[in-house]
Amino acid sequence: MAENKEEDVRLGANKFTEKQPLGTAAQTDKDYKEPPPAPLAPNKCASVGIQGIAWAFGGMIFALVYCTAGISGGHINPAVTFGLFLARKLSLTRALFYIVMQCLGAICGAGVVKGYMTGPYQDLKGGANFVNHGYTKGSGLGAEIIGTFVLVYTVFSATDAKRNARDSHVPILAPLPIGFAVFLVHLATIPITGTGINPARSLGAAIIYNRDHAWDDHWIFWVGPFIGAALAAVYHQIVIRAIPFKSSRAC
Amino acid sequence: MAENKEEDVRLGANKFTEKQPLGTAAQTDKDYKEPPPAPLAPNKCASVGIQGIAWAFGGMIFALVYCTAGISGGHINPAVTFGLFLARKLSLTRALFYIVMQCLGAICGAGVVKGYMTGPYQDLKGGANFVNHGYTKGSGLGAEIIGTFVLVYTVFSATDAKRNARDSHVPILAPLPIGFAVFLVHLATIPITGTGINPARSLGAAIIYNRDHAWDDHWIFWVGPFIGAALAAVYHQIVIRAIPFKSSRAC
Amino acid sequence: MAENKEEDVRLGANKFTEKQPLGTAAQTDKDYKEPPPAPLAPNKCASVGIQGIAWAFGGMIFALVYCTAGISGGHINPAVTFGLFLARKLSLTRALFYIVMQCLGAICGAGVVKGYMTGPYQDLKGGANFVNHGYTKGSGLGAEIIGTFVLVYTVFSATDAKRNARDSHVPILAPLPIGFAVFLVHLATIPITGTGINPARSLGAAIIYNRDHAWDDHWIFWVGPFIGAALAAVYHQIVIRAIPFKSSRAC
Amino acid sequence: MAENKEEDVRLGANKFTEKQPLGTAAQTDKDYKEPPPAPLAPNKCASVGIQGIAWAFGGMIFALVYCTAGISGGHINPAVTFGLFLARKLSLTRALFYIVMQCLGAICGAGVVKGYMTGPYQDLKGGANFVNHGYTKGSGLGAEIIGTFVLVYTVFSATDAKRNARDSHVPILAPLPIGFAVFLVHLATIPITGTGINPARSLGAAIIYNRDHAWDDHWIFWVGPFIGAALAAVYHQIVIRAIPFKSSRAC
Repeated sequence: MAENKEEDVRLGANKFTEKQPLGTAAQTDKDYKEPPPAPLAPNKCASVGIQGIAWAFGGMIFALVYCTAGISGGHINPAVTFGLFLARKLSLTRALFYIVMQCLGAICGAGVVKGYMTGPYQDLKGGANFVNHGYTKGSGLGAEIIGTFVLVYTVFSATDAKRNARDSHVPILAPLPIGFAVFLVHLATIPITGTGINPARSLGAAIIYNRDHAWDDHWIFWVGPFIGAALAAVYHQIVIRAIPFKSSRAC
Repeated sequence: MAENKEEDVRLGANKFTEKQPLGTAAQTDKDYKEPPPAPLAPNKCASVGIQGIAWAFGGMIFALVYCTAGISGGHINPAVTFGLFLARKLSLTRALFYIVMQCLGAICGAGVVKGYMTGPYQDLKGGANFVNHGYTKGSGLGAEIIGTFVLVYTVFSATDAKRNARDSHVPILAPLPIGFAVFLVHLATIPITGTGINPARSLGAAIIYNRDHAWDDHWIFWVGPFIGAALAAVYHQIVIRAIPFKSSRAC
Repeated sequence: MAENKEEDVRLGANKFTEKQPLGTAAQTDKDYKEPPPAPLAPNKCASVGIQGIAWAFGGMIFALVYCTAGISGGHINPAVTFGLFLARKLSLTRALFYIVMQCLGAICGAGVVKGYMTGPYQDLKGGANFVNHGYTKGSGLGAEIIGTFVLVYTVFSATDAKRNARDSHVPILAPLPIGFAVFLVHLATIPITGTGINPARSLGAAIIYNRDHAWDDHWIFWVGPFIGAALAAVYHQIVIRAIPFKSSRAC
Repeated sequence: MAENKEEDVRLGANKFTEKQPLGTAAQTDKDYKEPPPAPLAPNKCASVGIQGIAWAFGGMIFALVYCTAGISGGHINPAVTFGLFLARKLSLTRALFYIVMQCLGAICGAGVVKGYMTGPYQDLKGGANFVNHGYTKGSGLGAEIIGTFVLVYTVFSATDAKRNARDSHVPILAPLPIGFAVFLVHLATIPITGTGINPARSLGAAIIYNRDHAWDDHWIFWVGPFIGAALAAVYHQIVIRAIPFKSSRAC
């Protein structure tokens, strides 16, 4: 998502003009108000930047997990649902039902944004995920696998019944590290893929935006997150469970 | 509030001149770097930006909800008070009393800022809310409805007695997701309306600033938040309450 | 503190040259690497900005309150100590002892920074507080009073024994809203006074920097915070205590 | 890591050319706005900046301490492990084992980044730590000592069994102030050394980057953190333990 903004900035003057036809803007070079030529700086700073996008995703996941944890179990991401299904924390039927609902929700969300923010929506390419210039598809896939692993590993840590009983901070803070994990992964991978790690979010954006370049890389945002979630499930169930737990906490 | 800053940047030289009549702006190259007369305002980077404004609102709501939750029930927003009234969590008399007090408080706050920060106050158009250029009134109304829905939905989740008994993180973290919801809504809607979602805040700023363009859109910042709060109340009372709660927490 | 950085940026090319004699920098105007003429943007963005400074203060207060709350009662600010003394939460002897120690600590801290970061220390005018250009002394005093009121009001809310027993979030989150209050006050008042609200911090910076313009306004950073703290103490002891507490929490 | 970016910005045209040989850079005005070839890196605003890097480190430590506290005791930093060993909280064998594993993990992490983000990896000099231009080795060592002291002091505060029993916020928030301490130290020392305070992180980056200037200062990132951790252990064991604890909590 962020990389699109970057690109807009790069495209430069012609793009800028399209949005606000100043008419006489090209007359004087000395004109105080011609920041576009400057490389990225003024426009980028006017937006919330990569950090702001990362906060938006992380903060929203924190609030949503907080609000829904006790109702549906906080399932708002097909990759997380898949990981928890592998760990036998919910049935196949329920997992499929959740995943379909997650995708429908994401499509509605993207549709709403397209509806009332037409200008920015097109400029930012509908928030669709794809591998950015300068990165290979393999790098994009790797980024999605690692990113989703970090997220699902944190989810397992926060919802482990054994740990809940032992560490007082685990059940109470739970939504916070999950939101922070989402924040961190966005900081790291927005420049690579715009950050998927949630196939529903990627699907919703792609369906509403519906252009070829959004669909070409789309498989990466299903395959990557599902592999990452599976690795986290295996790691948690086999490796961690096999270790005898230390009783004292040191940090 | 932020959108004004944006606008200053975009509208360019003529706007800038209005604020600080350099007169000879086009004469020399040196003029290009003489912003000091305007204290911090015009350059987006020099200010805290959209993200900083969003943190200021979200952080302040977090601190205020933390401080007042146990005294008045944390009522600092007419839309939230209206939503909780619809859910029969307080009486009509008390709700009206709170709303009047909230508006008086907002007027005082805006007055204080005007009093000791005269320069930035005028530059930022008194922090008054209105629909920004490039957006229709319908978009602005939609943004206020959705934004307030997110806030009031979070408030209901955080104050649900059933959930308080079941999920250990709910009562303890409560002020935090409410603050984060405010932060997120600001990130999303500052470019559209400057973000109201609190009719008292919009009214206070409009009364103290008192210019036509602040009043023209003012109805949006009452109608939008009240519709959003009503939708959240209906959603919480009817939809959520009807669902049999899951006993195990997954994510 | 932040306003100094601003000024450095404004002073422009000569200042910049002082730091890194490029030698041939002035030869070509088209040289890609001459950002200084651009108004504030590139340099400001290279630093952490007002938001970063606010996070540094707020985050540090959060960590320090967390670490010291159980040992000394978290007294690291003469204004807070004064407010708590007025509320009879500690003796005069102990309050004076704490205030002297707070000032000594602040002097040491400023000295350490001067010792190993000589360049930035001078550029940023030693982090000393004074009323910024464009603001009157009255505005600066007002900013300090309001800022300290917000902080000490939050401290009273977080340490009220009655509330601790009633609201589960109060004792557990306590250090967090105090840190956030500091963050918020910095966001609001860095452009006005560089934000004092802690006379020890202002004194330490002034003693180590030791220039006239740092001393001229110094009284503001004692009088302002003490008035703000006294108002918060009066407000908490008289107004709040007199209100019969609501038993149900609504938010 | 960040200081490299800084340096790029300062050193100017020659540096820039090194990365993207435009050849004709001085010929036309249009060249001024052609940064795209380098993906995001050179412009500070386009990246997440010092604040973003600080959040990435702080947030990740928060999430990792949250996830691992109950399993290994949250040992992910040789300096912290050393400090806790000095305080006799774990055996020498276990401490050495942890430190070796921490270093292996850091090497793998740096290797993964090099593998799929080749461009930015080289631009940012592999995230290796070294004392930045404008600072002496002594300043760098001092920054590492103070930074690690702050971190390990916070860790001791968060894991003190006596405090856990007394202050309700201590065990529950524990991972949060530790993450914030890491955030704060990065804000303060990224401009000086790129912030080590974790010898494993410095070693991993140096081994994978493997250039002379990364190795020349490498001792600083072992000696500094170990001295800082030892000071924190001494301070906590001798000074703090000797003070009779106050029973009432004030702020």
